[in-house]
Amino acid sequence: MIRVSFDGRNFSGYQFQPDRRTVQGELTKAAGTIFGECTVTGCSRTDAGVHATGFIASVETLSGNVPADRLPFAMNSLLPEDIAVTGASVAADDFHPRYDAKSKHYRYLIRDSRLRDPLLSGRVWQIHTRLDVGAMEEAARILVGEHDFAAFCAAGSTVSSTVRTIYGIDVGRDGDVVAVDVYGNGFLYNMVRIIVGTLVYVSQGKLTCGDVGKLLETGDRTAAGVTAPPYGLYLTEVVY
Amino acid sequence: MIRVSFDGRNFSGYQFQPDRRTVQGELTKAAGTIFGECTVTGCSRTDAGVHATGFIASVETLSGNVPADRLPFAMNSLLPEDIAVTGASVAADDFHPRYDAKSKHYRYLIRDSRLRDPLLSGRVWQIHTRLDVGAMEEAARILVGEHDFAAFCAAGSTVSSTVRTIYGIDVGRDGDVVAVDVYGNGFLYNMVRIIVGTLVYVSQGKLTCGDVGKLLETGDRTAAGVTAPPYGLYLTEVVY
Repeated sequence: MIRVSFDGRNFSGYQFQPDRRTVQGELTKAAGTIFGECTVTGCSRTDAGVHATGFIASVETLSGNVPADRLPFAMNSLLPEDIAVTGASVAADDFHPRYDAKSKHYRYLIRDSRLRDPLLSGRVWQIHTRLDVGAMEEAARILVGEHDFAAFCAAGSTVSSTVRTIYGIDVGRDGDVVAVDVYGNGFLYNMVRIIVGTLVYVSQGKLTCGDVGKLLETGDRTAAGVTAPPYGLYLTEVVY
Repeated sequence: MIRVSFDGRNFSGYQFQPDRRTVQGELTKAAGTIFGECTVTGCSRTDAGVHATGFIASVETLSGNVPADRLPFAMNSLLPEDIAVTGASVAADDFHPRYDAKSKHYRYLIRDSRLRDPLLSGRVWQIHTRLDVGAMEEAARILVGEHDFAAFCAAGSTVSSTVRTIYGIDVGRDGDVVAVDVYGNGFLYNMVRIIVGTLVYVSQGKLTCGDVGKLLETGDRTAAGVTAPPYGLYLTEVVY
Protein backbone atom coordinates (compact mmCIF):
# COMPACT_ATOMS: atom_id res chain seq x y z
CA MET A 1 0.00 0.00 0.00
CA ILE A 2 1.11 3.54 -0.71
CA ARG A 3 0.25 6.85 0.91
CA VAL A 4 -0.29 9.61 -1.64
CA SER A 5 -0.52 13.42 -1.56
CA PHE A 6 -1.92 15.40 -4.44
CA ASP A 7 -3.03 18.87 -5.40
CA GLY A 8 -6.43 18.13 -6.94
CA ARG A 9 -6.76 21.25 -9.08
CA ASN A 10 -5.55 19.75 -12.32
CA PHE A 11 -7.01 16.28 -11.85
CA SER A 12 -10.42 15.07 -13.04
CA GLY A 13 -10.68 13.28 -9.69
CA TYR A 14 -9.21 9.96 -8.59
CA GLN A 15 -10.89 7.44 -10.84
CA PHE A 16 -9.44 6.50 -14.20
CA GLN A 17 -11.15 8.02 -17.24
CA PRO A 18 -9.85 7.67 -20.78
CA ASP A 19 -8.44 10.96 -22.11
CA ARG A 20 -8.66 12.65 -18.70
CA ARG A 21 -5.89 13.36 -16.22
CA THR A 22 -6.74 11.36 -13.10
CA VAL A 23 -4.90 10.35 -9.93
CA GLN A 24 -5.44 6.67 -10.66
CA GLY A 25 -4.19 7.18 -14.21
CA GLU A 26 -0.96 8.88 -13.08
CA LEU A 27 -0.30 6.32 -10.32
CA THR A 28 -0.93 3.42 -12.70
CA LYS A 29 1.40 4.88 -15.32
CA ALA A 30 4.24 5.38 -12.80
CA ALA A 31 3.74 1.99 -11.12
CA GLY A 32 3.53 0.34 -14.54
CA THR A 33 6.93 1.75 -15.50
CA ILE A 34 8.42 0.22 -12.36
CA PHE A 35 6.55 -3.07 -12.10
CA GLY A 36 5.15 -3.77 -15.54
CA GLU A 37 1.60 -5.03 -15.36
CA CYS A 38 -0.08 -3.92 -12.12
CA THR A 39 -3.39 -2.80 -10.63
CA VAL A 40 -3.80 0.38 -8.58
CA THR A 41 -6.83 0.51 -6.27
CA GLY A 42 -7.73 3.62 -4.27
CA CYS A 43 -9.39 4.19 -0.89
CA SER A 44 -11.93 6.64 -2.28
CA ARG A 45 -13.23 8.12 -5.52
CA THR A 46 -12.33 11.72 -4.79
CA ASP A 47 -13.93 14.34 -7.03
CA ALA A 48 -12.21 16.71 -9.44
CA GLY A 49 -10.53 19.49 -7.46
CA VAL A 50 -10.37 17.61 -4.14
CA HIS A 51 -6.90 17.39 -2.58
CA ALA A 52 -5.29 14.71 -0.44
CA THR A 53 -2.46 14.46 2.05
CA GLY A 54 -3.24 10.90 3.17
CA PHE A 55 -4.82 9.07 0.25
CA ILE A 56 -4.19 5.30 0.44
CA ALA A 57 -3.89 3.06 -2.60
CA SER A 58 -2.78 -0.50 -3.15
CA VAL A 59 -0.48 -1.51 -5.97
CA GLU A 60 -0.91 -5.17 -6.95
CA THR A 61 2.11 -6.39 -8.84
CA LEU A 62 3.38 -9.67 -10.23
CA SER A 63 7.01 -8.81 -9.52
CA GLY A 64 8.20 -7.19 -6.28
CA ASN A 65 11.35 -5.82 -7.86
CA VAL A 66 11.42 -2.63 -5.77
CA PRO A 67 11.40 -2.88 -1.95
CA ALA A 68 8.66 -0.88 -0.18
CA ASP A 69 11.06 1.59 1.45
CA ARG A 70 12.46 2.56 -1.97
CA LEU A 71 9.09 2.71 -3.73
CA PRO A 72 8.21 6.36 -2.82
CA PHE A 73 11.49 7.58 -4.37
CA ALA A 74 11.06 5.40 -7.45
CA MET A 75 7.44 6.53 -7.93
CA ASN A 76 8.15 10.24 -7.26
CA SER A 77 10.85 10.38 -9.90
CA LEU A 78 8.18 9.32 -12.41
CA LEU A 79 5.16 11.25 -11.08
CA PRO A 80 4.32 14.85 -12.05
CA GLU A 81 4.81 17.78 -9.64
CA ASP A 82 1.26 17.79 -8.27
CA ILE A 83 1.26 14.22 -6.94
CA ALA A 84 3.72 12.30 -4.74
CA VAL A 85 3.96 9.05 -2.83
CA THR A 86 4.86 9.84 0.79
CA GLY A 87 5.03 6.32 2.21
CA ALA A 88 4.78 2.65 1.29
CA SER A 89 4.54 -0.67 3.07
CA VAL A 90 3.81 -4.28 2.19
CA ALA A 91 0.13 -5.12 2.71
CA ALA A 92 -1.68 -8.43 3.15
CA ASP A 93 -2.67 -10.13 -0.10
CA ASP A 94 -6.36 -9.51 0.57
CA PHE A 95 -5.95 -5.87 1.63
CA HIS A 96 -8.47 -3.50 0.03
CA PRO A 97 -7.92 0.24 0.55
CA ARG A 98 -11.63 1.05 0.32
CA TYR A 99 -13.41 -1.88 1.96
CA ASP A 100 -10.89 -2.30 4.78
CA ALA A 101 -10.96 1.36 5.88
CA LYS A 102 -12.18 1.67 9.48
CA SER A 103 -12.38 5.45 9.51
CA LYS A 104 -11.48 8.45 7.42
CA HIS A 105 -10.54 12.00 8.28
CA TYR A 106 -11.39 14.83 5.93
CA ARG A 107 -10.39 18.43 6.45
CA TYR A 108 -12.25 21.32 4.83
CA LEU A 109 -10.73 24.83 4.68
CA ILE A 110 -12.79 28.00 4.36
CA ARG A 111 -11.29 31.48 4.17
CA ASP A 112 -13.72 34.08 5.49
CA SER A 113 -12.38 37.45 4.59
CA ARG A 114 -13.65 40.21 2.34
CA LEU A 115 -10.38 40.08 0.40
CA ARG A 116 -9.17 36.91 -1.27
CA ASP A 117 -5.63 35.52 -0.94
CA PRO A 118 -4.17 34.53 -4.33
CA LEU A 119 -1.70 32.18 -2.64
CA LEU A 120 -4.70 30.17 -1.36
CA SER A 121 -6.58 30.16 -4.65
CA GLY A 122 -7.81 26.62 -5.40
CA ARG A 123 -6.91 25.59 -1.84
CA VAL A 124 -9.77 27.06 0.22
CA TRP A 125 -13.42 28.03 -0.19
CA GLN A 126 -13.31 31.81 -0.18
CA ILE A 127 -16.39 33.42 1.34
CA HIS A 128 -16.79 37.09 2.11
CA THR A 129 -18.66 37.17 5.41
CA ARG A 130 -17.12 36.26 8.76
CA LEU A 131 -18.09 32.81 10.03
CA ASP A 132 -19.43 32.15 13.52
CA VAL A 133 -17.26 29.23 14.65
CA GLY A 134 -19.31 28.75 17.83
CA ALA A 135 -22.57 28.37 15.88
CA MET A 136 -20.89 25.95 13.47
CA GLU A 137 -19.57 23.86 16.40
CA GLU A 138 -23.04 23.72 17.96
CA ALA A 139 -24.63 22.53 14.70
CA ALA A 140 -21.78 20.05 14.12
CA ARG A 141 -22.46 18.36 17.46
CA ILE A 142 -25.96 17.40 16.22
CA LEU A 143 -24.41 15.41 13.36
CA VAL A 144 -22.01 13.38 15.51
CA GLY A 145 -23.06 9.75 16.03
CA GLU A 146 -24.81 7.11 13.93
CA HIS A 147 -27.47 8.71 11.73
CA ASP A 148 -29.20 8.39 8.40
CA PHE A 149 -27.31 10.98 6.36
CA ALA A 150 -29.61 10.79 3.30
CA ALA A 151 -30.03 14.59 3.41
CA PHE A 152 -26.25 14.88 3.13
CA CYS A 153 -25.88 12.76 0.01
CA ALA A 154 -25.75 14.13 -3.52
CA ALA A 155 -28.80 13.32 -5.64
CA GLY A 156 -28.35 10.42 -8.04
CA SER A 157 -26.15 8.41 -5.71
CA THR A 158 -27.12 4.75 -5.35
CA VAL A 159 -26.05 3.13 -2.10
CA SER A 160 -27.75 0.36 -0.16
CA SER A 161 -27.77 2.34 3.07
CA THR A 162 -27.33 6.01 3.89
CA VAL A 163 -26.59 5.30 7.56
CA ARG A 164 -23.08 6.34 8.61
CA THR A 165 -21.32 7.13 11.88
CA ILE A 166 -19.53 10.41 12.43
CA TYR A 167 -17.04 10.12 15.27
CA GLY A 168 -16.40 13.82 15.57
CA ILE A 169 -16.41 17.20 13.86
CA ASP A 170 -13.98 19.91 14.98
CA VAL A 171 -14.31 23.50 13.84
CA GLY A 172 -11.34 25.78 14.46
CA ARG A 173 -10.05 29.14 13.28
CA ASP A 174 -6.48 30.11 12.38
CA GLY A 175 -6.53 33.76 11.31
CA ASP A 176 -8.82 34.09 8.30
CA VAL A 177 -9.01 30.33 7.72
CA VAL A 178 -11.64 28.12 9.37
CA ALA A 179 -10.88 24.38 9.32
CA VAL A 180 -13.66 21.81 9.62
CA ASP A 181 -12.27 18.37 10.52
CA VAL A 182 -14.70 15.49 10.01
CA TYR A 183 -13.99 11.95 11.25
CA GLY A 184 -16.28 9.11 10.28
CA ASN A 185 -16.54 5.41 9.46
CA GLY A 186 -17.56 6.16 5.90
CA PHE A 187 -18.95 8.95 3.78
CA LEU A 188 -21.72 9.25 1.21
CA TYR A 189 -21.17 11.03 -2.10
CA ASN A 190 -20.43 14.73 -1.37
CA MET A 191 -21.31 14.17 2.31
CA VAL A 192 -18.46 16.24 3.79
CA ARG A 193 -19.06 19.06 1.34
CA ILE A 194 -22.80 19.14 2.13
CA ILE A 195 -22.06 19.05 5.88
CA VAL A 196 -19.71 22.02 5.46
CA GLY A 197 -22.24 23.91 3.33
CA THR A 198 -24.87 23.25 6.00
CA LEU A 199 -22.61 24.50 8.83
CA VAL A 200 -21.95 27.66 6.81
CA TYR A 201 -25.71 28.13 6.34
CA VAL A 202 -26.15 27.86 10.13
CA SER A 203 -23.41 30.46 10.63
CA GLN A 204 -25.17 32.75 8.14
CA GLY A 205 -28.57 32.29 9.81
CA LYS A 206 -30.07 30.49 6.81
CA LEU A 207 -30.60 27.33 8.89
CA THR A 208 -31.04 26.79 12.64
CA CYS A 209 -29.69 23.93 14.74
CA GLY A 210 -33.29 22.70 14.87
CA ASP A 211 -33.33 22.56 11.07
CA VAL A 212 -30.15 20.49 11.12
CA GLY A 213 -31.72 17.99 13.51
CA LYS A 214 -34.74 17.74 11.20
CA LEU A 215 -32.47 16.98 8.21
CA LEU A 216 -31.41 13.77 9.96
CA GLU A 217 -35.08 12.81 10.38
CA THR A 218 -36.47 13.79 6.98
CA GLY A 219 -33.47 12.94 4.78
CA ASP A 220 -34.46 15.89 2.59
CA ARG A 221 -31.37 16.94 0.59
CA THR A 222 -33.11 20.06 -0.70
CA ALA A 223 -33.46 21.39 2.85
CA ALA A 224 -29.72 21.10 3.62
CA GLY A 225 -27.04 23.66 2.82
CA VAL A 226 -25.19 24.20 -0.42
CA THR A 227 -22.54 21.67 -1.52
CA ALA A 228 -19.26 23.37 -0.62
CA PRO A 229 -16.84 23.53 -3.57
CA PRO A 230 -14.36 20.65 -4.00
CA TYR A 231 -11.12 22.66 -3.78
CA GLY A 232 -11.46 23.31 -0.03
CA LEU A 233 -11.55 19.56 0.73
CA TYR A 234 -8.55 17.42 1.77
CA LEU A 235 -8.59 13.66 2.38
CA THR A 236 -6.23 13.70 5.32
CA GLU A 237 -6.09 10.21 6.84
CA VAL A 238 -7.48 6.72 6.45
CA VAL A 239 -7.34 4.35 9.40
CA TYR A 240 -7.34 0.56 8.88
CA MET B 1 -0.70 53.13 -3.19
CA ILE B 2 -1.91 49.55 -3.22
CA ARG B 3 -0.69 46.45 -1.41
CA VAL B 4 -0.67 43.39 -3.66
CA SER B 5 -0.39 39.60 -3.17
CA PHE B 6 0.39 37.28 -6.02
CA ASP B 7 1.33 33.71 -6.77
CA GLY B 8 4.32 34.22 -9.07
CA ARG B 9 4.22 30.85 -10.81
CA ASN B 10 2.36 31.96 -13.89
CA PHE B 11 3.84 35.44 -14.18
CA SER B 12 6.91 36.44 -16.18
CA GLY B 13 7.85 38.63 -13.20
CA TYR B 14 6.61 42.07 -12.23
CA GLN B 15 7.75 44.28 -15.05
CA PHE B 16 5.61 44.82 -18.15
CA GLN B 17 6.66 42.90 -21.25
CA PRO B 18 4.64 42.84 -24.46
CA ASP B 19 3.02 39.42 -25.07
CA ARG B 20 3.97 38.17 -21.60
CA ARG B 21 1.79 37.81 -18.52
CA THR B 22 3.25 40.17 -15.92
CA VAL B 23 2.10 41.57 -12.57
CA GLN B 24 2.43 45.15 -13.85
CA GLY B 25 0.48 44.23 -16.96
CA GLU B 26 -2.42 42.72 -14.98
CA LEU B 27 -2.52 45.60 -12.48
CA THR B 28 -2.43 48.18 -15.28
CA LYS B 29 -5.25 46.45 -17.16
CA ALA B 30 -7.49 46.30 -14.06
CA ALA B 31 -6.68 49.86 -12.96
CA GLY B 32 -7.22 51.08 -16.52
CA THR B 33 -10.72 49.60 -16.57
CA ILE B 34 -11.54 51.53 -13.40
CA PHE B 35 -9.68 54.82 -13.92
CA GLY B 36 -9.05 55.05 -17.66
CA GLU B 37 -5.56 56.28 -18.36
CA CYS B 38 -3.22 55.54 -15.43
CA THR B 39 0.35 54.57 -14.54
CA VAL B 40 1.21 51.66 -12.26
CA THR B 41 4.66 51.75 -10.63
CA GLY B 42 6.00 48.90 -8.51
CA CYS B 43 8.34 48.73 -5.51
CA SER B 44 10.55 46.08 -7.09
CA ARG B 45 11.17 44.21 -10.31
CA THR B 46 10.47 40.74 -8.98
CA ASP B 47 11.60 37.85 -11.18
CA ALA B 48 9.42 35.24 -12.85
CA GLY B 49 8.23 32.74 -10.25
CA VAL B 50 8.76 35.01 -7.22
CA HIS B 51 5.68 35.47 -5.00
CA ALA B 52 4.52 38.41 -2.93
CA THR B 53 2.29 38.99 0.05
CA GLY B 54 3.24 42.65 0.55
CA PHE B 55 4.15 44.09 -2.85
CA ILE B 56 3.53 47.87 -3.00
CA ALA B 57 2.58 49.73 -6.15
CA SER B 58 1.36 53.21 -6.90
CA VAL B 59 -1.51 53.90 -9.28
CA GLU B 60 -1.33 57.39 -10.74
CA THR B 61 -4.70 58.43 -12.11
CA LEU B 62 -6.27 61.53 -13.55
CA SER B 63 -9.66 60.82 -12.01
CA GLY B 64 -10.13 59.64 -8.44
CA ASN B 65 -13.52 58.11 -9.14
CA VAL B 66 -13.11 55.19 -6.71
CA PRO B 67 -12.32 55.90 -3.04
CA ALA B 68 -9.24 54.09 -1.65
CA ASP B 69 -11.21 51.87 0.73
CA ARG B 70 -13.29 50.51 -2.17
CA LEU B 71 -10.36 50.11 -4.57
CA PRO B 72 -9.28 46.58 -3.42
CA PHE B 73 -12.78 45.23 -4.11
CA ALA B 74 -13.03 47.02 -7.44
CA MET B 75 -9.59 45.78 -8.53
CA ASN B 76 -10.09 42.21 -7.28
CA SER B 77 -13.29 41.78 -9.26
CA LEU B 78 -11.21 42.49 -12.38
CA LEU B 79 -7.96 40.69 -11.49
CA PRO B 80 -7.30 36.99 -12.16
CA GLU B 81 -7.24 34.37 -9.36
CA ASP B 82 -3.49 34.50 -8.78
CA ILE B 83 -3.26 38.19 -7.93
CA ALA B 84 -5.22 40.40 -5.52
CA VAL B 85 -5.10 43.86 -3.99
CA THR B 86 -5.19 43.53 -0.20
CA GLY B 87 -5.10 47.19 0.79
CA ALA B 88 -5.10 50.72 -0.61
CA SER B 89 -4.53 54.23 0.66
CA VAL B 90 -4.03 57.70 -0.79
CA ALA B 91 -0.31 58.54 -1.15
CA ALA B 92 1.50 61.86 -1.49
CA ASP B 93 1.78 63.15 -5.09
CA ASP B 94 5.53 62.55 -5.12
CA PHE B 95 5.41 59.06 -3.57
CA HIS B 96 7.55 56.49 -5.36
CA PRO B 97 7.18 52.83 -4.29
CA ARG B 98 10.78 51.95 -5.15
CA TYR B 99 12.81 55.04 -4.30
CA ASP B 100 10.95 55.85 -1.09
CA ALA B 101 11.27 52.34 0.40
CA LYS B 102 13.23 52.48 3.69
CA SER B 103 13.45 48.71 4.11
CA LYS B 104 12.18 45.48 2.64
CA HIS B 105 11.47 42.08 4.11
CA TYR B 106 11.84 38.97 1.99
CA ARG B 107 11.00 35.47 3.14
CA TYR B 108 12.53 32.39 1.53
CA LEU B 109 11.05 28.92 2.12
CA ILE B 110 13.03 25.70 1.77
CA ARG B 111 11.57 22.25 2.31
CA ASP B 112 14.26 19.81 3.41
CA SER B 113 12.78 16.36 3.22
CA ARG B 114 13.60 13.34 1.11
CA LEU B 115 10.00 13.27 -0.12
CA ARG B 116 8.43 16.24 -1.86
CA ASP B 117 5.01 17.70 -0.98
CA PRO B 118 2.86 18.28 -4.09
CA LEU B 119 0.77 20.85 -2.21
CA LEU B 120 3.94 22.97 -1.83
CA SER B 121 5.09 22.55 -5.42
CA GLY B 122 6.07 25.95 -6.84
CA ARG B 123 5.95 27.43 -3.32
CA VAL B 124 9.19 26.18 -1.74
CA TRP B 125 12.69 25.12 -2.77
CA GLN B 126 12.63 21.36 -2.28
CA ILE B 127 15.99 19.92 -1.24
CA HIS B 128 16.57 16.36 -0.15
CA THR B 129 19.11 16.66 2.67
CA ARG B 130 18.29 17.97 6.14
CA LEU B 131 19.46 21.55 6.74
CA ASP B 132 21.49 22.60 9.78
CA VAL B 133 19.59 25.67 10.97
CA GLY B 134 22.25 26.50 13.57
CA ALA B 135 25.04 26.58 10.95
CA MET B 136 22.85 28.72 8.66
CA GLU B 137 22.16 31.17 11.51
CA GLU B 138 25.87 31.45 12.30
CA ALA B 139 26.73 32.21 8.66
CA ALA B 140 23.81 34.64 8.39
CA ARG B 141 25.16 36.72 11.29
CA ILE B 142 28.30 37.46 9.23
CA LEU B 143 26.17 39.11 6.54
CA VAL B 144 24.24 41.41 8.87
CA GLY B 145 25.32 45.06 8.73
CA GLU B 146 26.58 47.40 5.99
CA HIS B 147 28.73 45.50 3.51
CA ASP B 148 29.71 45.41 -0.13
CA PHE B 149 27.46 42.60 -1.41
CA ALA B 150 29.07 42.40 -4.88
CA ALA B 151 29.55 38.64 -4.39
CA PHE B 152 25.78 38.35 -3.84
CA CYS B 153 24.74 40.10 -7.05
CA ALA B 154 23.88 38.31 -10.28
CA ALA B 155 26.44 38.81 -13.06
CA GLY B 156 25.48 41.39 -15.66
CA SER B 157 23.78 43.71 -13.19
CA THR B 158 24.77 47.37 -13.48
CA VAL B 159 24.38 49.40 -10.31
CA SER B 160 26.42 52.36 -9.12
CA SER B 161 27.13 50.77 -5.74
CA THR B 162 26.91 47.24 -4.39
CA VAL B 163 26.95 48.40 -0.77
CA ARG B 164 23.77 47.55 1.11
CA THR B 165 22.74 47.19 4.74
CA ILE B 166 21.12 44.02 6.04
CA TYR B 167 19.28 44.69 9.29
CA GLY B 168 18.75 41.07 10.17
CA ILE B 169 18.46 37.50 8.91
CA ASP B 170 16.36 35.00 10.85
CA VAL B 171 16.47 31.29 10.11
CA GLY B 172 13.71 29.15 11.60
CA ARG B 173 12.25 25.69 11.15
CA ASP B 174 8.57 24.66 11.13
CA GLY B 175 8.45 20.91 10.51
CA ASP B 176 10.05 20.20 7.15
CA VAL B 177 10.07 23.85 6.09
CA VAL B 178 12.96 26.20 6.88
CA ALA B 179 12.17 29.91 6.54
CA VAL B 180 14.92 32.46 5.95
CA ASP B 181 13.71 36.01 6.69
CA VAL B 182 15.94 38.76 5.33
CA TYR B 183 15.48 42.43 6.26
CA GLY B 184 17.49 45.11 4.49
CA ASN B 185 17.52 48.69 3.19
CA GLY B 186 17.77 47.49 -0.39
CA PHE B 187 18.73 44.44 -2.39
CA LEU B 188 20.90 43.79 -5.44
CA TYR B 189 19.69 41.64 -8.30
CA ASN B 190 19.17 38.06 -7.00
CA MET B 191 20.78 39.04 -3.68
CA VAL B 192 18.33 37.23 -1.40
CA ARG B 193 18.43 34.11 -3.56
CA ILE B 194 22.26 34.06 -3.57
CA ILE B 195 22.31 34.63 0.22
CA VAL B 196 19.95 31.66 0.66
CA GLY B 197 22.01 29.50 -1.70
CA THR B 198 25.14 30.43 0.27
CA LEU B 199 23.55 29.57 3.62
CA VAL B 200 22.49 26.20 2.18
CA TYR B 201 26.09 25.62 1.00
CA VAL B 202 27.31 26.34 4.56
CA SER B 203 24.76 23.86 5.92
CA GLN B 204 25.99 21.28 3.42
CA GLY B 205 29.67 21.89 4.29
CA LYS B 206 30.46 23.27 0.83
CA LEU B 207 31.39 26.64 2.37
CA THR B 208 32.60 27.65 5.85
CA CYS B 209 31.70 30.76 7.81
CA GLY B 210 35.23 31.94 7.05
CA ASP B 211 34.47 31.61 3.32
CA VAL B 212 31.34 33.71 3.77
CA GLY B 213 33.37 36.46 5.46
CA LYS B 214 35.82 36.39 2.55
CA LEU B 215 32.98 36.81 0.04
CA LEU B 216 32.27 40.22 1.57
CA GLU B 217 35.94 41.18 1.10
CA THR B 218 36.57 39.78 -2.38
CA GLY B 219 33.17 40.39 -3.98
CA ASP B 220 33.70 37.18 -5.95
CA ARG B 221 30.27 35.95 -7.11
CA THR B 222 31.73 32.67 -8.36
CA ALA B 223 32.85 31.76 -4.82
CA ALA B 224 29.34 32.22 -3.32
CA GLY B 225 26.58 29.61 -3.23
CA VAL B 226 24.10 28.72 -5.94
CA THR B 227 21.25 31.12 -6.75
CA ALA B 228 18.25 29.59 -4.97
CA PRO B 229 15.27 29.12 -7.32
CA PRO B 230 12.72 31.96 -7.58
CA TYR B 231 9.64 30.04 -6.42
CA GLY B 232 10.76 29.84 -2.77
CA LEU B 233 10.95 33.65 -2.52
CA TYR B 234 8.22 35.95 -1.14
CA LEU B 235 8.34 39.75 -1.00
CA THR B 236 6.67 40.11 2.36
CA GLU B 237 6.80 43.73 3.43
CA VAL B 238 8.05 47.13 2.33
CA VAL B 239 8.51 49.87 4.94
CA TYR B 240 8.37 53.57 3.97
